[in-house]
Amino acid sequence: MDRPAAPAGAVATRPVVRDGAETVDAVAVEEPLEIRVDGDRIATTMRTPGSDHDLALGFLLAEGIIAGAEDVGSMFHCGRPGEEGYGNVLDVTSAGGHRIDPERILDSRRFLPVSSACGVCGREAIDRLLARVPAVASDARADRALVVRAMDALRRSQPVFERTGGLHAAVLVGAGGEVLAAAEDVGRHNAVDKVVGALLRQGVLGARATASGRPVVLAVSGRAGFEIVQKAAVAGVPVVASVSAPSSLAVDLAVRAGVALLGFVRGERMNVYAHAWRVDATASCPR
Amino acid sequence: MDRPAAPAGAVATRPVVRDGAETVDAVAVEEPLEIRVDGDRIATTMRTPGSDHDLALGFLLAEGIIAGAEDVGSMFHCGRPGEEGYGNVLDVTSAGGHRIDPERILDSRRFLPVSSACGVCGREAIDRLLARVPAVASDARADRALVVRAMDALRRSQPVFERTGGLHAAVLVGAGGEVLAAAEDVGRHNAVDKVVGALLRQGVLGARATASGRPVVLAVSGRAGFEIVQKAAVAGVPVVASVSAPSSLAVDLAVRAGVALLGFVRGERMNVYAHAWRVDATASCPR
Repeated sequence: MDRPAAPAGAVATRPVVRDGAETVDAVAVEEPLEIRVDGDRIATTMRTPGSDHDLALGFLLAEGIIAGAEDVGSMFHCGRPGEEGYGNVLDVTSAGGHRIDPERILDSRRFLPVSSACGVCGREAIDRLLARVPAVASDARADRALVVRAMDALRRSQPVFERTGGLHAAVLVGAGGEVLAAAEDVGRHNAVDKVVGALLRQGVLGARATASGRPVVLAVSGRAGFEIVQKAAVAGVPVVASVSAPSSLAVDLAVRAGVALLGFVRGERMNVYAHAWRVDATASCPR
Repeated sequence: MDRPAAPAGAVATRPVVRDGAETVDAVAVEEPLEIRVDGDRIATTMRTPGSDHDLALGFLLAEGIIAGAEDVGSMFHCGRPGEEGYGNVLDVTSAGGHRIDPERILDSRRFLPVSSACGVCGREAIDRLLARVPAVASDARADRALVVRAMDALRRSQPVFERTGGLHAAVLVGAGGEVLAAAEDVGRHNAVDKVVGALLRQGVLGARATASGRPVVLAVSGRAGFEIVQKAAVAGVPVVASVSAPSSLAVDLAVRAGVALLGFVRGERMNVYAHAWRVDATASCPR
């Protein structure tokens, strides 16, 4: 993949004072995107404009609201192109025969039981949260060379970061090291939603995916928290590689969901926090 | 301030494979915290346990739900101490005569108008969002030496990061360079809520604050997005310093809310994206 250009609308300039002199700096654009399903607001996320359709598809999959792109009829930005600020509301409509039900939301921010009693909080709720994320069925593996290629691809996929220093990135890489999707965003979660959504749109991911070439490695800049592993597991991506640290809950979910979780990946060195058999050619699959 | 110890419950260990050998690694704890007001769920955030009362106070202030700690009667964790997972639901009750109204929420994720018409989205909604954040009334300044001290304090306030590499940090520093509050969390926003909440609890911040020694600089690890500046502005903190990049919307809000926004602070070098007069002793206050 050639080094991509920064997408239109992802970089803005703002005045800055540096070393006592006034100049102009490039900054990453952050704007709200409201996602509606059949006219009802589902979520508003602060995101970097660009690939909004992919962002919405990936978000709706991760939250358990859709099973694939075939559940979606059309997606359109509200308003008129050319108006200032056009593009910050995206309406997603159900496909004929596939009424999208936002009540199916898996959202980790809403999983705890509503109750005026307090006996059900704590570890039990966390176990329920972990159990709601489906396990990855694939027995795909990624050797270290593939992980290294994924991290190299991540670094080459950051045109906006190079100009602004202000974005996270995510890439999905196939079994042969090919980059299937790459995205940048002010939000780590959004970058992952964008790459998953791109493959949903292309029919490579999703419950009724028909296209071949499924991703094996999700590589992310920054840390690997719970929601990054959740998004990978729901999308069926078996390996998550991060340049930085995982959290305790990310490790716990990866163990439970069959995801190999790699942290502090630097060249061929890495910490493997879950399902090391996926990255160790000499190990046998435990299932 | 002495180098603080990592708070109990903020670090966990998990098995890890490193260089082909099985060992144990320290990871930052991430667990959900559900915040309830008078029994009603307001939000669930993925956070690092510790200082939950401060986190809730800071969050409720930033969202416009309380004006200060005096609006709160009591705060208690549900369940029984010692139970596994105890502490992941926090109930906040209204003070007598101060019925807390969650409908007052300023939440940036909910500001867009619900409408099946689309004419009101875009720049207009963003302007409304920016206008809802109150301007900082203080004409306080921070010379470069104070900014450098704040960033030094930030680095010294990361005991969990040093063990895990997995946490963000925030500190609030007073006019004399003294550290008023410091916190770490898997979420940047949570770290800021925790330091603001600590000073609300102490009566230093809030609508009816009586204690002296208000903070002048909020220093944060990582990038400065919209919500970081929002939290500073609502708390009345006049200077935000980040080791990394701001977003476009963070700059726009800082300009509007009277907050000096400093990015890429490295030693005495920094980019000043808004209200440079606050960090330039030779400039006059524009008001």
